Amino acid sequence: MKAVKAVVFDLYGTLYDVHSVAGRCGERFPGRGLEISLLWRQKQLEYTWLRTLMGQYISFEQATEQALDYVAAHLKLSLPPEAHAELCNEYLRLRPYPEADAALSALRARGLPLAILSNGSVFSIHSVVEHSRLAHQFDHLISVEAVKMFKPHTSVYELAERTLGFARDEILFVSSNSWDASGARHFGYQVCWVNRFGNTFDRLGQTPHYTVASLDELPERVSAAAVAS
Amino acid sequence: MKAVKAVVFDLYGTLYDVHSVAGRCGERFPGRGLEISLLWRQKQLEYTWLRTLMGQYISFEQATEQALDYVAAHLKLSLPPEAHAELCNEYLRLRPYPEADAALSALRARGLPLAILSNGSVFSIHSVVEHSRLAHQFDHLISVEAVKMFKPHTSVYELAERTLGFARDEILFVSSNSWDASGARHFGYQVCWVNRFGNTFDRLGQTPHYTVASLDELPERVSAAAVAS
Repeated sequence: MKAVKAVVFDLYGTLYDVHSVAGRCGERFPGRGLEISLLWRQKQLEYTWLRTLMGQYISFEQATEQALDYVAAHLKLSLPPEAHAELCNEYLRLRPYPEADAALSALRARGLPLAILSNGSVFSIHSVVEHSRLAHQFDHLISVEAVKMFKPHTSVYELAERTLGFARDEILFVSSNSWDASGARHFGYQVCWVNRFGNTFDRLGQTPHYTVASLDELPERVSAAAVAS
Repeated sequence: MKAVKAVVFDLYGTLYDVHSVAGRCGERFPGRGLEISLLWRQKQLEYTWLRTLMGQYISFEQATEQALDYVAAHLKLSLPPEAHAELCNEYLRLRPYPEADAALSALRARGLPLAILSNGSVFSIHSVVEHSRLAHQFDHLISVEAVKMFKPHTSVYELAERTLGFARDEILFVSSNSWDASGARHFGYQVCWVNRFGNTFDRLGQTPHYTVASLDELPERVSAAAVAS
């Protein structure tokens, strides 16, 4: 494989823990934080996929809000508008995984440009990255907003290739979402799957080039790949 | 609304019970039939959506097989090839809901042409309909195979309009999958949601024109709509 010239990260679930919203959900609905957070995330993803298929793009924030509407109705949760807004705002203040900052620094120290390619809107991505004080780590924050479709549509993966100016097989794409890793691999990126929780890789006709259990394995993998190539 | 001139049915979950495979799953893995069947169905749907987004169509049978591969790996089920094939074959022998036959007859007695529009391949749809002895009820069996994309992509809904030769707002589309009902409504069909189990309608910016708890309410609804129009 070619030497890696840049690294592109997924945001939700990869650099940032989407279930950090579970805490706030649990404050309002004691004992049910994770149940709510899991269904909310599942529906949020489904709505991004279904909206893209229907040709009816809405922003990631809107998909997040509508997914929470579903969850509240389905689980019969009493959720007045201000509580609804408060929970949705948690998606703007997600916690990065503890090893993210150091891993990003180590990759930058190797001279690699770093980017985020995310389903989030420009506003969401900037909010999350700035709130967590990681903005200085990234050369580019790339939102699907520019193409009005969500991952894993090919048009989304093209955005990062175009922005970075390297060939797709010189770019390492990093995601903990196996359907996203599959879409990126199908597009032609080098792909690393971050499997923190012993998950099963989705059967979509693709496999990742590398699998790591956390981001801190990444800098060494990238160096090893460069030597091997 | 305009008088209904034809009725188009979704197959999986609407006319036929997808969880009738749970019985066979439970024979092989006692006590786990429904757990397996639910995750299998969820992944089967995800794979149809994700494959369409990736521009990598595979047949519904293949999506079903790959979803079962995922389930077996994820739940650590020992599933030799012949057992895998046996479970997949259950999707060709799904049971129709008990009221389906009479409801279809009542609609035909009103002179309405009936069709199925399904994610299934031509082979799958014919297998299911013939195995259940309901083939005589349908004027058209329409598969997504012709467009190589899955619901809720607009191209799929166009297929039925083109085949039936009526305007989309003169066709009643019936589905128990709320994301399918949403796609059909967005396309412009009259839409009836079959909500047998007190489910929550997905928040995709659409609502059904009618909701019924079972197919036997359908003939009367269609007549009432015709009178009202």
